[in-house]
Amino acid sequence: MDKLTIVKVGGKIVEEELSLAQLLNDFSTISGNKILVHGGGRSATAIAARLGIESKMVDGRRITDKEMLEVVTMVYGGLVNKQIVAGLQAKGCNASGFCGADMDIIRSVKRPVKEIDYGFVGDVIDVNTSELRLLLEQGVSPVIAPLTHNGKGMLLNTNADTIASELAMALAKYFSVHLIYCFEKNGVLSNPDDDNSVIHYIDSALYQQYKTEGVISEGMIPKLDNAFRALNSGVAEVQITNANNLTRHNARGTVLKLS
Amino acid sequence: MDKLTIVKVGGKIVEEELSLAQLLNDFSTISGNKILVHGGGRSATAIAARLGIESKMVDGRRITDKEMLEVVTMVYGGLVNKQIVAGLQAKGCNASGFCGADMDIIRSVKRPVKEIDYGFVGDVIDVNTSELRLLLEQGVSPVIAPLTHNGKGMLLNTNADTIASELAMALAKYFSVHLIYCFEKNGVLSNPDDDNSVIHYIDSALYQQYKTEGVISEGMIPKLDNAFRALNSGVAEVQITNANNLTRHNARGTVLKLS
Repeated sequence: MDKLTIVKVGGKIVEEELSLAQLLNDFSTISGNKILVHGGGRSATAIAARLGIESKMVDGRRITDKEMLEVVTMVYGGLVNKQIVAGLQAKGCNASGFCGADMDIIRSVKRPVKEIDYGFVGDVIDVNTSELRLLLEQGVSPVIAPLTHNGKGMLLNTNADTIASELAMALAKYFSVHLIYCFEKNGVLSNPDDDNSVIHYIDSALYQQYKTEGVISEGMIPKLDNAFRALNSGVAEVQITNANNLTRHNARGTVLKLS
Repeated sequence: MDKLTIVKVGGKIVEEELSLAQLLNDFSTISGNKILVHGGGRSATAIAARLGIESKMVDGRRITDKEMLEVVTMVYGGLVNKQIVAGLQAKGCNASGFCGADMDIIRSVKRPVKEIDYGFVGDVIDVNTSELRLLLEQGVSPVIAPLTHNGKGMLLNTNADTIASELAMALAKYFSVHLIYCFEKNGVLSNPDDDNSVIHYIDSALYQQYKTEGVISEGMIPKLDNAFRALNSGVAEVQITNANNLTRHNARGTVLKLS
């Protein structure tokens, strides 16, 4: 199977001029099939504030009311996405921006209200990759904004990590998928305060052991659970690393495999 | 050659809930290959005002400074485009949103400063339809936001009428292109104050005659010049009509042909 690299980058990286420039450069040098999934939360918060809309967060998750849905649709689907696309085109990478509604790529349902009403937030129910695969074959690199739709005309805000892992799992039938989560730290750390304490390799058995021993901090567990879910669904490799290491082969951060 | 319908709709139609709903309905019922090109100027002006950014217009054309470029990127590329896409998906139309930077569809140069500095406004220099044609073949209906790029990382604001005619001309090599400009009036009027004074048919000879006789008002001339330029470049038919007539075969507004 052909290799497909899916890179997920958070808002901080794509929203600062210098780190964005480096990301565009690094991503454009990745050879073969590739997809970029981006966030944009900080820009959304900043634009919302300028529009007089308050950003409400619960446990780090955004509450998306109707006004905030318009903001994230503008900022994720428009501002951040199109700036990345234009930047990649300038590097000779034939990028094309999409959200989950485009070509019906990612369908979701509005999250049911339990203790918390997250508002217009979508939980993924279906991923359609047929047109994406056709475009990948033509050398197009999709750039995906973290928005989905419910198939009934409603756009929904969806976590970018989830978008990346859902795409990875759906495409694992057709490609050897390498999923790379970029963030500010050098990888999964054994000491959250020491950026040099990177755990370089984690497999299923080690993950259980580290969780039991408390080696991995609480905050990383959802990300790692997500990663192992992807591996269990056929994704070849998950890498969690600093965006600076995207194209460095001797500093890969944390590599996760089933065994 | 297969038929391709390209519909251009202005801001007013896509920015009001009722007219947007009708447009989505009508566009989704057009059979065969189709592309929707949209504006969004009123929303951009409204969002800009809420952000404390003043909209500057000269002769009805927007001056696009750096801040306004961010607004139109958000509003055209994000808010308006993705709402149309989600709405069409709900009607069973497999829409996908693009701007000119995506897949390098439309390349432009920043308009040279003469008497007026329009700012980040792009004049089209190249249209690339190869991936668009592939998607049309798959039954995808592209929805195009009026933004282009210069290939060096800069997004540029570009008139939606121009985007529609440039796409029509570039695609006329491969399709029998029917280009439909929707606006608020019923067609080209012989009396601008009487919406029933539609001129139903104009060919090149009649156009010259009507211009000489002053039958056609000043304001329509750029639109009609644009239409005849498209016809002279191989576009099969141009129609100028009210959006309400999009799917009515007995009320087509003004139909323009070479002869």
